[in-house]
Amino acid sequence: MTSVPDHTPAPDSTSVSDHGTTNDLNELKRLLNQVSDLNAAAALMSWDQETQMPPEAARVRGLQMATLAGLSHELFTAPQIGTLLENAEPGPDETDVALLTVTRRDHAKATRIPTEFVEENARASSEAHHAWIAARENNDFVSFAPHLEKMIDLARRYADHQGFDDHPYDALIDDYEPGMKAAQVRGIFADLRDRTLPLLRRIVAAGDATDYSVLSRRFPATAQREFGLKIAQEAFGLLPGFSRLDESAHPFQTNFSRDDIRVTTRFDEHYFPMSLFGTWHETGHAMYEHGVAARLERTPLSRGASLGVHESQSRMFENLLGRSRPFWQRHFAAFAQAAPEVARGQDAESLYRAVNRVRPDLIRVEADEVTYNFHIMLRFELELALLEGTLSVADLPEAWNARMVEFLGVTPPDDAQGVLQDIHWSSGLIGYFPTYTLGNLLSVQLLEAAKRDPDIAAEVDRAEYGKLREWLVQNVHQYGRSRTPSEITQAATGGPLSADAYVKYLEDKYGDIYGLS
Amino acid sequence: MTSVPDHTPAPDSTSVSDHGTTNDLNELKRLLNQVSDLNAAAALMSWDQETQMPPEAARVRGLQMATLAGLSHELFTAPQIGTLLENAEPGPDETDVALLTVTRRDHAKATRIPTEFVEENARASSEAHHAWIAARENNDFVSFAPHLEKMIDLARRYADHQGFDDHPYDALIDDYEPGMKAAQVRGIFADLRDRTLPLLRRIVAAGDATDYSVLSRRFPATAQREFGLKIAQEAFGLLPGFSRLDESAHPFQTNFSRDDIRVTTRFDEHYFPMSLFGTWHETGHAMYEHGVAARLERTPLSRGASLGVHESQSRMFENLLGRSRPFWQRHFAAFAQAAPEVARGQDAESLYRAVNRVRPDLIRVEADEVTYNFHIMLRFELELALLEGTLSVADLPEAWNARMVEFLGVTPPDDAQGVLQDIHWSSGLIGYFPTYTLGNLLSVQLLEAAKRDPDIAAEVDRAEYGKLREWLVQNVHQYGRSRTPSEITQAATGGPLSADAYVKYLEDKYGDIYGLS
Repeated sequence: MTSVPDHTPAPDSTSVSDHGTTNDLNELKRLLNQVSDLNAAAALMSWDQETQMPPEAARVRGLQMATLAGLSHELFTAPQIGTLLENAEPGPDETDVALLTVTRRDHAKATRIPTEFVEENARASSEAHHAWIAARENNDFVSFAPHLEKMIDLARRYADHQGFDDHPYDALIDDYEPGMKAAQVRGIFADLRDRTLPLLRRIVAAGDATDYSVLSRRFPATAQREFGLKIAQEAFGLLPGFSRLDESAHPFQTNFSRDDIRVTTRFDEHYFPMSLFGTWHETGHAMYEHGVAARLERTPLSRGASLGVHESQSRMFENLLGRSRPFWQRHFAAFAQAAPEVARGQDAESLYRAVNRVRPDLIRVEADEVTYNFHIMLRFELELALLEGTLSVADLPEAWNARMVEFLGVTPPDDAQGVLQDIHWSSGLIGYFPTYTLGNLLSVQLLEAAKRDPDIAAEVDRAEYGKLREWLVQNVHQYGRSRTPSEITQAATGGPLSADAYVKYLEDKYGDIYGLS
Repeated sequence: MTSVPDHTPAPDSTSVSDHGTTNDLNELKRLLNQVSDLNAAAALMSWDQETQMPPEAARVRGLQMATLAGLSHELFTAPQIGTLLENAEPGPDETDVALLTVTRRDHAKATRIPTEFVEENARASSEAHHAWIAARENNDFVSFAPHLEKMIDLARRYADHQGFDDHPYDALIDDYEPGMKAAQVRGIFADLRDRTLPLLRRIVAAGDATDYSVLSRRFPATAQREFGLKIAQEAFGLLPGFSRLDESAHPFQTNFSRDDIRVTTRFDEHYFPMSLFGTWHETGHAMYEHGVAARLERTPLSRGASLGVHESQSRMFENLLGRSRPFWQRHFAAFAQAAPEVARGQDAESLYRAVNRVRPDLIRVEADEVTYNFHIMLRFELELALLEGTLSVADLPEAWNARMVEFLGVTPPDDAQGVLQDIHWSSGLIGYFPTYTLGNLLSVQLLEAAKRDPDIAAEVDRAEYGKLREWLVQNVHQYGRSRTPSEITQAATGGPLSADAYVKYLEDKYGDIYGLS
């Protein structure tokens, strides 16, 4: 049969609450459920576009996704929700209090932006995105420059609409890392730079006798997929009942409820770390979303607290666990079975060293644990200078290259491998990059806190993660957005976010690998 | 990266028109585009549920789909659309005239149904559906009877809300086959029955020496998929750029635009006709949807004219072409290569005969071209009697079995293989069944009309379908819902829908196979 044209609509969903909440609060929840469901549909359209959709469908899909985004914004900013947010009484339920706090904040931010600005921004970022693709392909920064100027201008105006106390950057980063300020990032990054740049220099000076050719030995894609997924499921806890793994041009995690999580990866048969660590990275994001409490379902609270906290989970699974010595000791035999050609003449220790190579290089997404954050610090400094007007877009490539030399001692041979390498700025994502490093720092800070429990520490040292996962659900995942990133960090680790744990982790791990003593 | 929480919405889509239409018409189109996009998202959610979704996601997905259906109904029945429909001036453009006509009709039907009725209907059909699953499993009609009574009652009340002149059935069938009346179906079916029942009796009396064991020889699922899709693409014209094939429990076709078509099938390694003819059947639906003119995109006109016209396309590809002698002559070699175990000792003629076995049996979905319509006529008569109140639900199984004996000479051993076999009634789909037979009749009537062009006839006799497809696009597909089924039938075939062509087709084909002449 073909699908039946359905003239009889289903009824609106209604949210049943057993709390003693007021009618206003219940009606608010009903409307927020609608917005959440619409956003889930939009997210599904996006996942489908990246993983399943036939190519010719792209044009209409773009129109459809624009409609859903517009409807979602229209529903969420409708005066009715504003009135309900003013009138609703939360009662004693902590979750309801958080729901009102967070939703009032979201609503205020959404209604501060005029529709014309939204439209101008969408048009400009679409044009900038296309210009960036061409510019990167042709190594032609000049053709991208006016678009980047426009995106910087829009970012400044966005910040003006939202308002800020100290720095326009505060209004931008707040969208990705609620409550974070440029000044705090600046402090943490300065500390991190001062303490890891000397380490990096010592590593580079130490030289490296490891044979990395093992990384480019052939590992067929289907076998990579099978092994990567097996580890994700059996070691890291990604349950097939609520998840699936697909292939896409760029790996990502998205989800349409805590029980409907989609992870993607990509394969290079002559560079297996891309798919394996990619899969485990996205598995970390997936575990977070699945761990959000069911009571937050279909509300603005039912996703990770911030991009930084999210990245702490993905980096924990990818790097702190997946690139650890106990992990490779435990799983080398299974790896050798899945990839006999790669494993020939290798052992757990040689694989462990191979996947932890430190090498200052040009491209952020392929950077190791030591150099990665320098790529971020560079972008953060340049974003600040562009927003402040102390750096012009025309001078950006030169400033980029100068910092690459300063931090990593490498000079990009062209802008395609330099300032044009990332998609973010072309999509108007300014203030986003720091969350990668904040996530790196938090990942170690959280793991260290969890391992204060000797049972967890003992398990992790055997590459078993059941108790660690329980701790993460308890201390991080379950709260969704009902606690801020800094509340979560403080309560889980006993202190604010800092570079301390991460620096110590790098010194211990790479001191050992590179014999720095 | 994980997906970015997107606080900045995209702008609403706007429809650009180069016709001399009024502002009201443009605004109407913009709103109809929104409804269409929302329906596309809902359809994607449904496709994903049947083909991709992890199992644990089902509960929340149900809530999300209910929200989207509710929002779509809310948007479409909003007073603003009513006012625009009253005020809009179509101008000289034929498509705009049709858009207003069809949308006014849809809108009137949608607004005639009170929201409470919609909710009651959704609840009742959900309960009836679950009751039906259990009843069929336990062969327990009595437990399903009260639910079926409720669905009959709701169908009567739905008809009362819509209004009708002659028979409540007219209001029901109109949702699936616009403009069709019970009296017309009755006339066509009586004619069909009177002329094919004697044929069926002669076929049964003739006996059958064909060896059908070939149908149950092993054909691995992956090879079935590959061969089925190859034929669908290379012979029938399903282009990979706008379509994909997946597996689902029940085969279906759905689409989210004319360029984004999803076909599904299912596999039995010991009964290959299920997947092959299933794939080609859904390919017929797919070709129809892809053939709808691009100018109707994202409007209520941009899908097939009715379920009957749709079924004419799926049946044409599945049966008139896929079960034809020239088809098997042309493709036997490729089939033998794909399924050497099945083809051993066979030839084109023996395969042709095997896939055209006529056998009166219990189950509709597995019925052949001669007996299939009796399954439909039986259901149509029972639906009429139930609505008229001349048959009670309690007496339904007996009435079912009596007609099975009368038409097909078989008695269901239990209700699971009798009155409980179909999903339709449990979902409130009453008035739907006749469209299957109307589609069968129209398929032959259309093919006969197309073959009046000697070039098309010559191609089809060589199992080439390029010119036939062009004719179908020209005479059927392109119009979408901008012409009614009877307008399409009249213009394409030169007369109204009748059983004539189908009866002659059966007599010729099966007279030859069974040596009746």
